[in-house]
Amino acid sequence: MKLVKEEIEIETRKLYEVIDITEKVEAVLEKSKIKNGILFANSLHNTAALIIQENDSSIFKDLEKSLEKIFPLNEKYEHSYEGNINATAHLKNCFLGNSISVPIENGKLQLGTWQRIMFIELFEARNRKVVITIIGE
Amino acid sequence: MKLVKEEIEIETRKLYEVIDITEKVEAVLEKSKIKNGILFANSLHNTAALIIQENDSSIFKDLEKSLEKIFPLNEKYEHSYEGNINATAHLKNCFLGNSISVPIENGKLQLGTWQRIMFIELFEARNRKVVITIIGE
Amino acid sequence: MKLVKEEIEIETRKLYEVIDITEKVEAVLEKSKIKNGILFANSLHNTAALIIQENDSSIFKDLEKSLEKIFPLNEKYEHSYEGNINATAHLKNCFLGNSISVPIENGKLQLGTWQRIMFIELFEARNRKVVITIIGE
Repeated sequence: MKLVKEEIEIETRKLYEVIDITEKVEAVLEKSKIKNGILFANSLHNTAALIIQENDSSIFKDLEKSLEKIFPLNEKYEHSYEGNINATAHLKNCFLGNSISVPIENGKLQLGTWQRIMFIELFEARNRKVVITIIGE
Repeated sequence: MKLVKEEIEIETRKLYEVIDITEKVEAVLEKSKIKNGILFANSLHNTAALIIQENDSSIFKDLEKSLEKIFPLNEKYEHSYEGNINATAHLKNCFLGNSISVPIENGKLQLGTWQRIMFIELFEARNRKVVITIIGE
Repeated sequence: MKLVKEEIEIETRKLYEVIDITEKVEAVLEKSKIKNGILFANSLHNTAALIIQENDSSIFKDLEKSLEKIFPLNEKYEHSYEGNINATAHLKNCFLGNSISVPIENGKLQLGTWQRIMFIELFEARNRKVVITIIGE
């Protein structure tokens, strides 16, 4: 059994930017030479999300609209010293999560046909980091 | 340390069908002979959820009602070419998640007294797949 | 590759108590002597949450307010035999989740600058258990 760890850097440009990081993750997997096992991706941030979904912009427009309705910007928040976009970013992160796992089969990510690894910026332009951990053989 | 992987097939019959897959997962664990470690279950779908909860139908009736209120069917969605049930299924998946982990103790799933592994269909009758990965000794 | 498992006990005192368990988790990691790998924390409960977030009470006041709005106490719930706080606790758990993972780097939890491991009581005063599983070398 082998363990491989590597960091992926993501530069986001604005609130609600959605970035498909599947290829970057696959590159780490390929380099690891691990053929069978499981891969973990952990985002090191409290105001961004990391999920598995279809890479279809219409889904993320709907997600944005839902998030704005559930966590409205024009309400009073306690965590307000960086503004309401930041306050609600923390809440959205709590609901969407910041880590995923993907099984590995024959040296490839075992994702469903339409599944992709999607990073969602919930605050503003930032340098973000995702740690990839692979365990397998 | 040992690694075991196996796929579980689930045939769902309708929207909001909730299926307790704990016994199927336990069967994979038993066959693996792994006594101590951790098990991962990854659903390969963007319109279904995989969570740990109590297997009590009243909870899932409440969950259905909450989901319908948060993601109403009678709104306009961008991801509409498969209808609004599909559009909202993607959103519900983003919030509920599609993977879980369970520690293994003495060859058994180490779940809380009332915890079970529950698969929730969020779209329509489908053949679904969950990948089980077990790491342990 | 090494595997270490240990349980953490948490005594909560009331609904919405938020407990930073990062130091308890770090103590398990330190004892394990594992320098590189990944750590999993699994809460064995359906009415509490385990998430990664900033340890700032203002965020959790906002989270409480959001949860109360999304899952109002003054509605009719099917899962009502332990009261509506319990009914909504199950729903909140479905959305927030009950497990997290953290990479390990140089024998330390590899968390972002403001990330902490936070346990949230969603029901009432209870003895809670979180299982820590560490895989690494």
